[in-house]
Amino acid sequence: MTRLAVHRSPASPRYRLAAGVERAPLRDLLARAARPGVISFAVGMPAQELLPAAAMARAAAEVCAGDPRALQYGLPSARLKSHVVDLMARRGVDCRQEQVFLTTGAQQGMDLLARLLVRRGDEVLLEETIYDGMSLVLRQRGARILTVPTSSVEGIDVEAVARALAAGARPAFLYVVPAGHNPLGVTLGVEVRRRLAALARRYEVPVLEDDAYGLLSYRESAAPALRSFDERWVFYLGSFSKILAPALRVGWIVVPEELQAPLTALKHLSDLDTATYGQRLLAAYLDGGDFSAHLERARSAYRERRDAMLAALEKHFPGDDGGLRHPVVRWSHPTCGMYVWLEMTSEVDSTLLLGEAIERESVAFSPGQVFAAAGGSAGWHALRLAFADARPDAIAEGVARLARALEAHRPALSLAS
Amino acid sequence: MTRLAVHRSPASPRYRLAAGVERAPLRDLLARAARPGVISFAVGMPAQELLPAAAMARAAAEVCAGDPRALQYGLPSARLKSHVVDLMARRGVDCRQEQVFLTTGAQQGMDLLARLLVRRGDEVLLEETIYDGMSLVLRQRGARILTVPTSSVEGIDVEAVARALAAGARPAFLYVVPAGHNPLGVTLGVEVRRRLAALARRYEVPVLEDDAYGLLSYRESAAPALRSFDERWVFYLGSFSKILAPALRVGWIVVPEELQAPLTALKHLSDLDTATYGQRLLAAYLDGGDFSAHLERARSAYRERRDAMLAALEKHFPGDDGGLRHPVVRWSHPTCGMYVWLEMTSEVDSTLLLGEAIERESVAFSPGQVFAAAGGSAGWHALRLAFADARPDAIAEGVARLARALEAHRPALSLAS
Repeated sequence: MTRLAVHRSPASPRYRLAAGVERAPLRDLLARAARPGVISFAVGMPAQELLPAAAMARAAAEVCAGDPRALQYGLPSARLKSHVVDLMARRGVDCRQEQVFLTTGAQQGMDLLARLLVRRGDEVLLEETIYDGMSLVLRQRGARILTVPTSSVEGIDVEAVARALAAGARPAFLYVVPAGHNPLGVTLGVEVRRRLAALARRYEVPVLEDDAYGLLSYRESAAPALRSFDERWVFYLGSFSKILAPALRVGWIVVPEELQAPLTALKHLSDLDTATYGQRLLAAYLDGGDFSAHLERARSAYRERRDAMLAALEKHFPGDDGGLRHPVVRWSHPTCGMYVWLEMTSEVDSTLLLGEAIERESVAFSPGQVFAAAGGSAGWHALRLAFADARPDAIAEGVARLARALEAHRPALSLAS
Repeated sequence: MTRLAVHRSPASPRYRLAAGVERAPLRDLLARAARPGVISFAVGMPAQELLPAAAMARAAAEVCAGDPRALQYGLPSARLKSHVVDLMARRGVDCRQEQVFLTTGAQQGMDLLARLLVRRGDEVLLEETIYDGMSLVLRQRGARILTVPTSSVEGIDVEAVARALAAGARPAFLYVVPAGHNPLGVTLGVEVRRRLAALARRYEVPVLEDDAYGLLSYRESAAPALRSFDERWVFYLGSFSKILAPALRVGWIVVPEELQAPLTALKHLSDLDTATYGQRLLAAYLDGGDFSAHLERARSAYRERRDAMLAALEKHFPGDDGGLRHPVVRWSHPTCGMYVWLEMTSEVDSTLLLGEAIERESVAFSPGQVFAAAGGSAGWHALRLAFADARPDAIAEGVARLARALEAHRPALSLAS
């Protein structure tokens, strides 16, 4: 571990920084993709116009109305925890308030669990392509990242997990996104979930289940959360950000009760408390009883957007021969969540493509390399399309722009190679 | 570094936890001290009835009113940063928006700066008695804590700092609370500030200035913030929690611009963003122009409460001989902030006293050992009285109860020794 010096002009002093601070790639993307006129599939945001602004304004009025307690420090909201228990029941999970720990969004849940479970140098098991917020946490923590194969069709290679554990690997934990995988879009079936939970139990290795998209299923019946298969070794991460109000930064984890005390200590030193105002606002909103209808509206709209994106991809990247897949471009068919994963032939560098796509065609996405758990070349010729925050006509237009950008990009690469 | 096993009944599995997770003492205190009928001086909370609930409700209505952007992800609020620049000017600091970094309360500012600047095993310089939120961060981070003497009369022993640096110590940083010290109540004079800033500059050691109480001065003119004496080596931590709305968890740090990028990366993996809703709410409130009058009301009320507490202490612990100090009990005379520090003779263990005080007399405080930077016996016969969230009559009654509890406690100790 070395120190990084920030070099300035000779007159300017140097700061000694601890190593392990990486740039957050998505923040730059957010800024570039947010430019006027750009159709952005870059960020996993819920649809702004579908957020329940009016009902939340009523809840805010109720919470605020002249009550100074609304602005004061406070203990975690039992009322909100009780609503979380109800949400967990929708995911097939039977849990108690005493197992619910409120966090400043699911991202903080990941950071706290990593601080709780991972020492510098410990191994952690990830899919080779995974949500970058988790791998950033782990690299900063000094974990050694082991990866197993994954795909946008089958998801995590559970037999590779079994082999690693059978061979003696004892990672601090395994992190998975079983529903609406970020970025691959794949959702794991019941049997794979059962097998993962059994492996966690057998080898006493915790599995962190990131279920931020679990309530956004586009099928009639969704697989129950992994947590429903084991309550001792599956730790659940949930979030209000994808379903209700990203601006409040409230999420939760469900863990065995004996982990509440050390998590409380870590939370205390991280930020004292999850904003009690946001907790009260969410509890008041959920008390209002509008949530089920809101969720149904969001799922219906996102299903339509998913369909619009798949249709546009079919149109612009048709199969060569009556339905066989396109020779250069393949994509996933998500049944849950917000993401389509698009893979191209290996001569396409999606990061280069992104710059060109924004400049020439005013369309944006997340390049695959962002999601490479261990860095390296995984995902360099793939990209993630987030469809939830774009209307169907914008999706059609954005995919047309993407197709033009890719068409323009490939000849240049052919010349260069 | 060793692993801690959480031992359960034999049927229950063990979790391997990373070391360095300590209990947060104040959370238990909060729960015990919050019982009905207890007069609590335990927690550094602003006065609930003085929080600007009505004006904040108006701001919430404005932010929420049917605008779904209020609930969406967003970049840090430039509007709020501009208000922070104005607040800094009140503290004598000339800074730019580009130097302001918004945090989930000042506590997160401490955690992020520790993650940025401290590697495991690095030395950090603290006063021997200091805010426990900082020492919890540092112990969890694996820092080695060096201490210098301090007192509730003079504050940090700046010559001890100078000697340590001259002798070769190069801590990752020095943390200080120059205004309304937590827990000692002392405020540093201008010359001490100038000397500290000069030492930071000379030895290129950053000073983290925690100025959460800086705007709560009870004098006509307050010393300018330490940051006003050096903008390269003093990093400033500010908070809206003590002056406006703890429930929103919004604070800020002011750092040189080249530290914004690595802080952004650390913030991203910690919790993505400071709740944008809370940012918008504060910005809307501050736009409203009520803040100056609110702050004046709070300062006036807290000054009155400080006076009530000092008067009650004089009454119950009078000097032996016409104004000479009490033989057993001494206390600080704060000119800023929320705390009186009370020191007793060494046979009094304030943690034992706390249990008795709550059970027998229904009065609570923070025992001094909470604030011992390096653990050990520092502060064991002292305690912190937070006066801001109790009305003057409750302060008078609470100090009377405390005097009775101490009177009951001392004979027992005499017997035991």
